[in-house]
This record gives sequence, structure tokens and C-alpha cells, in this order.
Amino acid sequence: MDIRIERVRTVDLRFPTSREAIGSDAVNKNPDYSAAYCILETDAGIEGHGLTFTLGLGTDLCVQALQHLGKHAEGRTLDSIVSDLAAFSRELTGESQYRWLGPEKGVTHLACGALINAVWDLWAKAEGKPVWRLLAEMSAERIADCIDFQYIDDLLSREEAIEILCQGQESLQERIDLLVRQGYPAYTTSVGWFGYSEDKIRRLAREGIAEGWTHFKLKVGGDPADDLRRGLIVREEIGWENCLMVDANQKWGVTEAIARTRQLAQLQPWWMEEPTSPDDILGHARIRRECKPVRIATGEHCHNRVMFKQLLQAEAIDVCQIDSCRVAGVNENLAILLMAAKMSVPVCPHAGGVGLCEYVQHLSAFDYLRVSRTMQDRVIEYVDHLHEHFVDPVRIRRGRYLMPQAPGYSIQVKQDSLERYSFPGGEGWASST
Amino acid sequence: MDIRIERVRTVDLRFPTSREAIGSDAVNKNPDYSAAYCILETDAGIEGHGLTFTLGLGTDLCVQALQHLGKHAEGRTLDSIVSDLAAFSRELTGESQYRWLGPEKGVTHLACGALINAVWDLWAKAEGKPVWRLLAEMSAERIADCIDFQYIDDLLSREEAIEILCQGQESLQERIDLLVRQGYPAYTTSVGWFGYSEDKIRRLAREGIAEGWTHFKLKVGGDPADDLRRGLIVREEIGWENCLMVDANQKWGVTEAIARTRQLAQLQPWWMEEPTSPDDILGHARIRRECKPVRIATGEHCHNRVMFKQLLQAEAIDVCQIDSCRVAGVNENLAILLMAAKMSVPVCPHAGGVGLCEYVQHLSAFDYLRVSRTMQDRVIEYVDHLHEHFVDPVRIRRGRYLMPQAPGYSIQVKQDSLERYSFPGGEGWASST
Repeated sequence: MDIRIERVRTVDLRFPTSREAIGSDAVNKNPDYSAAYCILETDAGIEGHGLTFTLGLGTDLCVQALQHLGKHAEGRTLDSIVSDLAAFSRELTGESQYRWLGPEKGVTHLACGALINAVWDLWAKAEGKPVWRLLAEMSAERIADCIDFQYIDDLLSREEAIEILCQGQESLQERIDLLVRQGYPAYTTSVGWFGYSEDKIRRLAREGIAEGWTHFKLKVGGDPADDLRRGLIVREEIGWENCLMVDANQKWGVTEAIARTRQLAQLQPWWMEEPTSPDDILGHARIRRECKPVRIATGEHCHNRVMFKQLLQAEAIDVCQIDSCRVAGVNENLAILLMAAKMSVPVCPHAGGVGLCEYVQHLSAFDYLRVSRTMQDRVIEYVDHLHEHFVDPVRIRRGRYLMPQAPGYSIQVKQDSLERYSFPGGEGWASST
Repeated sequence: MDIRIERVRTVDLRFPTSREAIGSDAVNKNPDYSAAYCILETDAGIEGHGLTFTLGLGTDLCVQALQHLGKHAEGRTLDSIVSDLAAFSRELTGESQYRWLGPEKGVTHLACGALINAVWDLWAKAEGKPVWRLLAEMSAERIADCIDFQYIDDLLSREEAIEILCQGQESLQERIDLLVRQGYPAYTTSVGWFGYSEDKIRRLAREGIAEGWTHFKLKVGGDPADDLRRGLIVREEIGWENCLMVDANQKWGVTEAIARTRQLAQLQPWWMEEPTSPDDILGHARIRRECKPVRIATGEHCHNRVMFKQLLQAEAIDVCQIDSCRVAGVNENLAILLMAAKMSVPVCPHAGGVGLCEYVQHLSAFDYLRVSRTMQDRVIEYVDHLHEHFVDPVRIRRGRYLMPQAPGYSIQVKQDSLERYSFPGGEGWASST
């Protein structure tokens, strides 16, 4: 494999979703689902694509950071990068002057996520496999080589990671066959956006049941009576045998979160998501202790493996919600999946946005095939927006993700969409100005 | 007060300090001390200046974020902003689409720090007082109005803040007189940069003693034997009756930090600073427990009040090192100072860089005058670089900061320097290209 990365091209990609209140919640009122997008152009006729998800404003900052970080990939062979991905990741996240802006958080770390994911897309394409299969068939040592253990080795050493990855190898093919045949369980967030009317929520919940969904998520964090009434509407439609999750999107302080979670307990939520600040590890731990048996979930805004490590160490979460591109790409998520497995916490990825569903199906598949080796109590988020822009969009059947078969990370956006929704010049933005 | 902010002007200001290894440590090898700088232009003939400190690359990202956030100030009167600074801060940090890039961390939060500090500079100039005096003379309620208690009210309520601020009011004038007469104690970091030779360290330590310094900081995190030898050189020069602090700048993982801190205990350090990742609250708590009696310090990379809250709740630190512009300006630091006081942890601000000494002297003065009401076990960092570029630079006498008397936040850079070190066009950069 001597593919050379000749150029890293970037796109500021934005979809005007705020016009329809799509994606609205208690904190994010008017998102324009967007992405800082990059394309690794090579001398071999294949390209690596990657993106990091944003909400509109500030996508330009991530694109600019991506242009700078991209210089670390330009001129290098794919092999020289993937032979030591941990080193490549450290080169990006630890760059001497840039590191001050984080470290490993915010705009610069989001950009790392896009670039490293693009490397994985390119690698998988070069190998002719989807990312999930590339990972499933990789040796434990090779996977461990991808992980930067700095700052997490007090919870997970390289040796422990390899030990986890080596377990259950004899039944790997059975798991692959089952996964390809049945798909991976999912839940839908499409029914309960904050800006949707009660009629719309009722209709969408009813339609969801008809489509075979069994897990539904509702946005809360408004007026307490409203939250409860909307929850009961969903319960009327989905019954009590299906699962309802509630998501406050960081709306509350710790004491308010405890009071509100207790109130919402009568909805029998399968989990309470993001009750408070994503930085508040000890706060989540306290909420969890004081609201049992309600299960606590967070992670979509958790900015790196050091924070996930502590959420697990503090026993702050019942559900670990990884995000595919807030952290530094596949590599950092490998570390998080392994730490969660060690601490027996199920991983249920955050998705939606732009491309997040396309991404995370690979990570959950890897989790099932090589790490936790179970799909019990695990579901991937699903939101039915913007998939039409992808070359290889996710496929859902009766509430389950069907495994992608095309080589790569499923994240490539159609050329036509890249042009149309390029900001601010694309045609998709013409009517708004 | 009906001063109107007409325009927010920004400057990408960079000094080529990496040419002399100034500021080098175990992690930051070649910093070009820089700042994303802003000027609030008003209709009243006065300007508000503010900056956030950076290390070179990526200053442009902060400047761009600052340009965007500046729109929240343009066209508004100073009074409409300072009458509810907590709301203004929330408007910046919680801006719906931008918030996704943090929240409250990284590039966008650094930019908030510059802008909010510029408001304080303008406010103090309008009142004809230095910021420290403006704060010292402000009512407790008015100070509390500046603080966004979201996500910290489980540790510090508005009522508790007011209670702390109301204590010792009868002796305020005595403290002001003492502070103006004697100054605030400081320590020097100028002797022990990582890139300095042993001869240079020895010479600088000797000079420091001659200048009246009593507290010295040394950068560690290199080869263990080197660290120890360099520490003993400083001890030879300063003796054991003066204080030596060591600073690892986040170099180690938790277990390595414990081993290395125990080794360095023979230097009898007054504190061990940044032994590991700034995000690792539980890691710092464990290092502190396992390395007693060595005192643990961190905070310069702690990105917001939620993280400081947890460092205090977890009993992870003996010394709280606030930074003047990594968090969202004076307001957020008011919250941190009050939380530290409640938890009886002394605050010793991070400084150096560009303008950090100029900034933090005001915050420590306020801490002494209204919050902790003591200078015991408290020192402000001092580094003797780049002060010549400021209109009202810090004044040091025998190891103490003398209080600034000019109105404002002491952060205004000379017009000539703003032009000369504007990046990349300024003359100061001409010779490097």
C-alpha cells in the first residue's frame, strides 16, 4: 500500500434545517445542520472523506483548523500514517502551538475528528472493506497500536485492551453472520423534537410504531407540565412495553436536574440524557445516585477520552453515548469503547445531525464484534434527516441498522450536494439571502 | 453612563518569542507568545481593550471567533451590557449555533474571554478606576449580578456569594491601604524555562535572589535525573528557606505523575503544578492523595467554572490557578474566586504570556480585598517578558506586584506594538520570512 495523499481539500457544508425546526431542543433552538468536510486526494484514484458535525455558525472555524491540520497528512503515504495511527493522532492533538487552544477540545479537536476519520475512510477503501469489517478482522495488537493511551492508562493499559480484544475470537464469524442478517438495534429521535407540536409528536409516534420502532426519544427541558404532557402523549401511542428515553440537552443545573428527573420518572424513561453540563462528571454521578433507578446517559458533548474515563471511574453514567467526530475520530473512540467494556457500561452512540448515523453504525458493529460482544441494552440513535445526500446512506429496516457493505466509512457526500450546500456560495443558500 | 460601543476591532498579535526558547516547557516547545486582541470603539472617546493569550498558530481562529462574538456588543450601550453582565456572558457562551463548538471551551471560549475583559476595561475606564478598585467598591449584589451561576449552584448559590462578599467590609479600607503600600506577593518563573541551560538557570536564580524574590518556579517533565539536577541547582542558589515550585505542564499520565512527584519530593517543592491532563479531575485527586504532603496545583488550562467547581469538590487541588482569559473573562473568574474561598483553597493565578500579569494583579487584589481577605499562601506568577509593549505595564518591587492606578484593566497594548507585531503583515515578522 503506497498510496500518497497529495492534497487535503475542505468544504464548509451547511444545510438550512433551521427553517423547519428540525433538530430543535431545549438548548439548540435553531440549528442549521452542517459539517466541516475534508477530502484526502491521492495519487491512486481513491479519496478519503471525513467530516465533523456542527450547527451552522462556526463551521468556518473548524474548516480553517482542518486546513491547517491537513498539512500533517499532505505528502505522506497512507501506510506511513496507519502504521502508527496513535502517533499521527498525537501529532495532531499535541501540536506545540495549537495545543494551547484546547488541549483536545473545542474547534481544533473537532477538526482532528474530521481528518482522522477521513484517514480511516481512505484506509478502508484501500483495503476494499467497510470500516467495521476492517476493524473486525484486524489483530488485537494492530488495534491497540491505533490508540493513544496517554492520560487513560490508569484505567486501561495496552495489555488490558489487547486482552479484551482477544476474547471471543472463536465465535467472531457467528457474530458477523448474525449482525449482517439481523442488523443492529436502533432508536428514533425523529418523533420528539422540541419545536414540534403535540399533534405532530402524536402522529410521528404512531407512525414510528407502524414502522417497527421499539425505542423512542423525546426532548424535554421545557416547562415541567409541558414535558410531562408530551411524554404521556408518546406513551399513549407507544404503550409501556416499548422504551421511551428523555433528553434534556444540558438544560439544568445539578439540583434542578435531580428534581426534574424525579418528576419525569413517572414516564418510566429508559434513560435520562444530558441532564446537566457535559463537563460535570461529579454532577452526573450525584444525579445518578439520587435519581435511581432512572438510568443516566451522556457523552455526545464529552470532548475526549479523559472525560469519558472519569465518567466511568466516577460511576456517573449507565449509558455511554459516544460521538463519532467530537473526539479525534475512530482511534479515540476505540479507546472509549474499550474503557466502557472494562467498566461494563453499554455504549449507545449519539447520531443524527449530518452523517453521524452513517459513521456510528461502524463503531457499534465493532463494539459488538470485538469488544462487548453483545447487543443487549444497546441501541444506535437514528434520525431520518439528510441521508439523501450520502453516496452510501444508512439503511434501516424495522428499527434496525443494516450493515453497510461498500468500502469506506459511509461518510462520502454526493458531489452535487457538496456543491449545492457549500456555504455561503451554494445554490441551496441562494433563497435564504 | 450612555457610552455606545460602535465597533469591535480585532488584531492578530504575535511576538516571535520562539526564536529564544522563551516560554519553553515540557509540552510547549516553541511558543510564539500571541494574543487575539480586540478594541471596543465607542462614541465617547474611550476604548475598551481585551485579549486572550495564545501560542502563535491558531490565533487567527480566536480572532475570527472574536469578530463574530463582537457583533453582540456592537451598537449597544455600555450600561445595557454591564447592568446584567451574567446575561451578556450567557448570550455569548450560549449562542445557539456556536455553542455546539464547545460548550464553554476551546477557541470560542477563549474569544469570549477577550471580549468580556474588554468590556471590563471599558467599564473601569468609564468609571475612572482600575478594575481592582471598581470591584473593591462594588456592592455585593452588583458583583453577584455579574456571575452566571448556571451549573455551579450546587456548590455556590447567589446567596452564599453575597454572604462571602459582605464579610469584612468594615476593614476594607485598611486592606486597600496595606495593598497599595506593600503590593501583592509574587513568584518568578523566569529562571527555569525548559529550554534554558543549567548555567543560565543558576545565573538567573542567583539574580532572582539579589532582586528580592522568595518564590521560584522550575519547569520539569524531562528526564528524571535532569529534572532533579536542575532542581538542586536552583536549591543551591535559593537555599531551602525560600520556596521552589515545580511545573510539569501536563506531561505525565496519572500513575507516572505519582511516581515522578514522589521522586521530586526531595526538592521539597512548595507545589507540583499540572502533573497530568488538565481535564483529569479524578486523576489530580488521586495524585494529591498519594503524594501527600506535596501540594498539587492546576488551573491554567482548566476551561471553565464547571471544571474548577469539580476540582474543588473532589479535593483535587491545594492551589487554584486561575487564568484571566481562558475562561470567559472577569465574570467567570469572580465565580471561581468565590468557590475557592468557600472551599478554603488559596488562589495563585497563572500569568506570564502576553498581558496575563497585567490582568491577574486586578483579580488577586479583588480576592484579597473582598473574598479571601488574606495574602497568606498566595502569590501571583510573574514572568519578565513583553511588558514593554503595554501602556500601563505591571510594576514589580522586591518580588511584589505594585497596584496599578490607571483606569481600566491594564491590558492596553501600545499602538506601535499593535502595528509592529500584527501578524503576518507587521514589521516584527518581516525578518522571519
